[in-house]
Amino acid sequence: MSEKTALVVSAHSADFVWRCAGAIALHAEKGYKVTVVCLSYGERGESAKLWKLEGMTLEKVKAARREEAEKAAAALGVADIRFFDLGDYPLEMNREDKYRLVDLIREVQPSFMLSHSHYDPYNTDHMYTTKVLLECRMIAQAWGHNPGEKVLGAPQVYLFEPHQTEQMGWKPDLFLDITPVWEKKRAAIECMAGQEHLWEYYTRVAENRGNHFRRNSGGQAGGRDCRYAEGFQSVYPRVVDEL
Amino acid sequence: MSEKTALVVSAHSADFVWRCAGAIALHAEKGYKVTVVCLSYGERGESAKLWKLEGMTLEKVKAARREEAEKAAAALGVADIRFFDLGDYPLEMNREDKYRLVDLIREVQPSFMLSHSHYDPYNTDHMYTTKVLLECRMIAQAWGHNPGEKVLGAPQVYLFEPHQTEQMGWKPDLFLDITPVWEKKRAAIECMAGQEHLWEYYTRVAENRGNHFRRNSGGQAGGRDCRYAEGFQSVYPRVVDEL
Amino acid sequence: MSEKTALVVSAHSADFVWRCAGAIALHAEKGYKVTVVCLSYGERGESAKLWKLEGMTLEKVKAARREEAEKAAAALGVADIRFFDLGDYPLEMNREDKYRLVDLIREVQPSFMLSHSHYDPYNTDHMYTTKVLLECRMIAQAWGHNPGEKVLGAPQVYLFEPHQTEQMGWKPDLFLDITPVWEKKRAAIECMAGQEHLWEYYTRVAENRGNHFRRNSGGQAGGRDCRYAEGFQSVYPRVVDEL
Amino acid sequence: MSEKTALVVSAHSADFVWRCAGAIALHAEKGYKVTVVCLSYGERGESAKLWKLEGMTLEKVKAARREEAEKAAAALGVADIRFFDLGDYPLEMNREDKYRLVDLIREVQPSFMLSHSHYDPYNTDHMYTTKVLLECRMIAQAWGHNPGEKVLGAPQVYLFEPHQTEQMGWKPDLFLDITPVWEKKRAAIECMAGQEHLWEYYTRVAENRGNHFRRNSGGQAGGRDCRYAEGFQSVYPRVVDEL
Amino acid sequence: MSEKTALVVSAHSADFVWRCAGAIALHAEKGYKVTVVCLSYGERGESAKLWKLEGMTLEKVKAARREEAEKAAAALGVADIRFFDLGDYPLEMNREDKYRLVDLIREVQPSFMLSHSHYDPYNTDHMYTTKVLLECRMIAQAWGHNPGEKVLGAPQVYLFEPHQTEQMGWKPDLFLDITPVWEKKRAAIECMAGQEHLWEYYTRVAENRGNHFRRNSGGQAGGRDCRYAEGFQSVYPRVVDEL
Amino acid sequence: MSEKTALVVSAHSADFVWRCAGAIALHAEKGYKVTVVCLSYGERGESAKLWKLEGMTLEKVKAARREEAEKAAAALGVADIRFFDLGDYPLEMNREDKYRLVDLIREVQPSFMLSHSHYDPYNTDHMYTTKVLLECRMIAQAWGHNPGEKVLGAPQVYLFEPHQTEQMGWKPDLFLDITPVWEKKRAAIECMAGQEHLWEYYTRVAENRGNHFRRNSGGQAGGRDCRYAEGFQSVYPRVVDEL
Repeated sequence: MSEKTALVVSAHSADFVWRCAGAIALHAEKGYKVTVVCLSYGERGESAKLWKLEGMTLEKVKAARREEAEKAAAALGVADIRFFDLGDYPLEMNREDKYRLVDLIREVQPSFMLSHSHYDPYNTDHMYTTKVLLECRMIAQAWGHNPGEKVLGAPQVYLFEPHQTEQMGWKPDLFLDITPVWEKKRAAIECMAGQEHLWEYYTRVAENRGNHFRRNSGGQAGGRDCRYAEGFQSVYPRVVDEL
Repeated sequence: MSEKTALVVSAHSADFVWRCAGAIALHAEKGYKVTVVCLSYGERGESAKLWKLEGMTLEKVKAARREEAEKAAAALGVADIRFFDLGDYPLEMNREDKYRLVDLIREVQPSFMLSHSHYDPYNTDHMYTTKVLLECRMIAQAWGHNPGEKVLGAPQVYLFEPHQTEQMGWKPDLFLDITPVWEKKRAAIECMAGQEHLWEYYTRVAENRGNHFRRNSGGQAGGRDCRYAEGFQSVYPRVVDEL
Repeated sequence: MSEKTALVVSAHSADFVWRCAGAIALHAEKGYKVTVVCLSYGERGESAKLWKLEGMTLEKVKAARREEAEKAAAALGVADIRFFDLGDYPLEMNREDKYRLVDLIREVQPSFMLSHSHYDPYNTDHMYTTKVLLECRMIAQAWGHNPGEKVLGAPQVYLFEPHQTEQMGWKPDLFLDITPVWEKKRAAIECMAGQEHLWEYYTRVAENRGNHFRRNSGGQAGGRDCRYAEGFQSVYPRVVDEL
Repeated sequence: MSEKTALVVSAHSADFVWRCAGAIALHAEKGYKVTVVCLSYGERGESAKLWKLEGMTLEKVKAARREEAEKAAAALGVADIRFFDLGDYPLEMNREDKYRLVDLIREVQPSFMLSHSHYDPYNTDHMYTTKVLLECRMIAQAWGHNPGEKVLGAPQVYLFEPHQTEQMGWKPDLFLDITPVWEKKRAAIECMAGQEHLWEYYTRVAENRGNHFRRNSGGQAGGRDCRYAEGFQSVYPRVVDEL
Repeated sequence: MSEKTALVVSAHSADFVWRCAGAIALHAEKGYKVTVVCLSYGERGESAKLWKLEGMTLEKVKAARREEAEKAAAALGVADIRFFDLGDYPLEMNREDKYRLVDLIREVQPSFMLSHSHYDPYNTDHMYTTKVLLECRMIAQAWGHNPGEKVLGAPQVYLFEPHQTEQMGWKPDLFLDITPVWEKKRAAIECMAGQEHLWEYYTRVAENRGNHFRRNSGGQAGGRDCRYAEGFQSVYPRVVDEL
Repeated sequence: MSEKTALVVSAHSADFVWRCAGAIALHAEKGYKVTVVCLSYGERGESAKLWKLEGMTLEKVKAARREEAEKAAAALGVADIRFFDLGDYPLEMNREDKYRLVDLIREVQPSFMLSHSHYDPYNTDHMYTTKVLLECRMIAQAWGHNPGEKVLGAPQVYLFEPHQTEQMGWKPDLFLDITPVWEKKRAAIECMAGQEHLWEYYTRVAENRGNHFRRNSGGQAGGRDCRYAEGFQSVYPRVVDEL
């Protein structure tokens, strides 16, 4: 009830690992109940290594991807992971699919949500996910949608880091220190057997974001000794009592 | 030492009142030592009412503007107010002027700074102030500037609300609830005898920003009952331990 | 025939009141025939107060919203108001719905059209409406769509003021003096019994836009004494014979 | 196999002529196999002159437009032209239509693709085409889409010049010298009997782009004597071995 | 007194011809008193042809450029042309130079002003001119600048068309029909003996802007038969009594 | 004469190493004569480690920084390195300083130039450098500046990678494969004894840019095996004979 909660909306089943595993593990340790929803398994578009194997089928790919995602979620302390299995490349959601996501949002009543960048010319599933998420956030706030249910407040939506940030027009406005949970993020990353080429890549991203954290907390004049960080872009303004 | 401090950099002597008096009063109440620097009195460009009086001189205008600003500062609990008297319309700062501002920044060692929007095609003094402030922040961080002095860390710079926000490309990313100090802000506003036509204008701004605060804290699904607010745009990303 | 006409396209039945009631009343007084189309009643998403009442149903909400809208339209001198009843939160239009809007556009042959901002992360119905309107404007111009009908020229589309303008990236490029019809706008606003919390909010908006009008017409050096105004953003360039 | 190929994706059957006929003819002369796909004939929206004739029907318009496009393609040395006949004003593509385009992309395995600007408030078919093209490019890269087929690499997408470039937010980052094939482009343009009002317009565009080519190659200090050029905007970064 | 006036601020002595000669001639015919100020002669940077002649000196170039500009001004009906002779490549203005421009602005009391685009990476004199103009407009509005003088109101600033518009981020929001005065503009253009390579270029620009005028006034559904036009971007919002 | 040349303009003496050492070494190997100009030594603002030493003076810092830069230049095969010694934090250039840079540009007649991002709110010296470089490029093109000298053509200006790219609004439009010269870049980096905290940071940047290179050259469908890359943003459009 008064428990703090968060919801991660991942287009494909591995996105939540590369992009916000640190945030997940950190908030799980702080007592947040974190729910992850994977709209698809990324079975068609993000499983090249599996498809290069002999005798592969769509179902086998999905099963393998699901298993990886579940392992990663467990490593991070995710409270609940849901697989909507909506298909990928392209991901498409009809009204029923959207209402399913609305139901989940209302069930979770998240303090904040995490999802993809607004723009991605390489991967239109990513930007589609955030477009639909903003729509579903609006529906979840409607008193006339399933009247009687508890409506949603106004949770922040944080956009996690895409690949090739500059091409996506993504600009982080906050850096989160994930040093305390780095080992968990790395463990989750290593669950992604099919995308081993990205393990070191995202480790380097975390280290360099740690540098950015230090810079923005004082740099050589006393910046905090953060080793690993994640960046996020906020969609909405914050409301505060102190600057 | 461990005292929290803030620095407001105001192009003309009244700007700090309209644009961030609430933030000043609120942080003063929280124990922050708030310093305000007025780079000019706005004596040439923002004192039309005074200039319409018989027998007015530049010195008289400056004195009147200074008195108003001091009264407003007192009403807000400002710890220190400085008048650089650099002239306005246009405001121009040479290297010596900049070093004077650097000295003040280092003296205050602010937790955060407040200043004007990046762009303002109506009032180039405003955007010039922020341009110079970013330059001075950089100088204040330099170990080789007056070696031995305590260098500056990496304080946030918040851009306060300009007039005609959309024309300035200013986008607030946070709203501060100033309801507890609204009476102080209104009192400070009423010190500005020369610009009475703006009293109600900025009262309406504060009320409508209160509405925005409520929206972004939950709206009709439990938004907080904020009556007056101020909006700010952050220049740099934040560093956090929790989203 | 040679009568001047205008078309307002409102996602929900109250939008036209808050956002352009002044423009409507003013042009009605000038002899324009103004048509308003409400694509939905805002029955699910913008009727929180009604839904909090005992025994409320979708039909009752729609009836109440329609009544309010009709009263407001009457107060403003609207010549014709149409309710497409397409549903809200989310609003979705299929090809048939679009052709219905095209038919209306061709029937009205508006001198200009009014609709929502291009972007709105709080309310995706709003931006969807303008996206579809631009599409329908294009279809209405096609000689091969219902050949024989009078095709549309190239009317301007003005985007009226959204809530939280800066978050929507909305930038007004013109201010319209609505002082002569302010009482009518206020009367229309007061028809919106379900959203009383917005009455004073939009009155303050009109007063502050009046200030912007004065500034941009000369300010303290002879600005026109406008008390209430509305702002609009043009989608297309204007064609003129004099600057 | 090792043959170089290019794919042009044209919303309406004449777009490829005005916007990139020079690029087509030039690359055809260089040995590229150029495929053009016309998603529609522009039969409803871009055939005003035909519709003003007595007894015109949709089929007649389509036949006339097809004939023009085929003649133009022949004049340019196009290797293959496909007509998807999906309808226009509005152009809409369902999943099957998209897969058809994916099939073509994989068949062609283009070195680069050419299509419309990202934004066009006058002609939503244009921007829709590029939106879908980016989606189809992504699908064509997916190992799980029709497993066993040769997947797509990462070809550049060049956005060709729209009408009223500034309104579309289109910014060319390269100019291609089409002087050697200008006569072919002009011949292709003259195949467009239904849009004769644009012949001189696009000739002037080519000449003025030639001026821009000269400027950016040295101007009065030795710029190359290019007489006609076309401009393009790249969607993705280039990969190079030399600056 | 009640005479309508306009002020054109041209970085180099030929800019006003290519970019807004139509607007000048048109308003002169309408009875406006149009003043042109050339901040420099463009003697160093825009006189390549002259510098290639034997025995050329700075003074000779300036004299030749001045003569051309005066002839062009005469052809257009300019009421007054001033040469500030501030030097070019780079153009730099100190406080005294700015006050000289302020004096002129106050003397003219223009209904509107015309100048360069905000951005120009090819020609920094151009963007510098507009930056200074906005500063001088602000100073001219200050009651405390030369108290007793008539202060400036809030005239619009229109940015005229730069070379390579897309690279400058210039977006026209209005097109002015200059067909009635085209012969005068062409005559003024032909006064620019030193830049003959641009005569046809800017004639084509005017013709293509005529096409844009027609499009935005109705296109094939009754667009006005404008043959030549000029485009402008407004810096400030307009204030109107009718949409 | 027909030798290919390049010019790197570095605000502080280490910038050229972190940001484009790979491009320098690669082009040196290709036979380009590469000139580097360090406008300052970064002696005040980028030498924190040195200033923390006992008995440090400005001259000692400058000498140490110069020595490091010369070593790095040697490691990269730089043909010529110039130190303008203009001071830093802030860097300021008067007309004489600018003409000195113009002289160098004309002397080198570079095929292309490399410099900082357009915007940098952390380090205003960086953006000032590029602002001045664009101005000096313009002056170098002026036939009337030191008449008789060989004027500059229209060389591209590439903006090299800043720290915290997203905050600077920097977007790379090309990736250069620096794998063949990586050892040289690393060696140059290790010359920067005073900034050892950045060695690994920029190594990670190079590796991750290598990943981006691979992605944009085909990714898992045959991307080229680039291990290290540098990204650049072009200021001007390119002129080409083939897409």
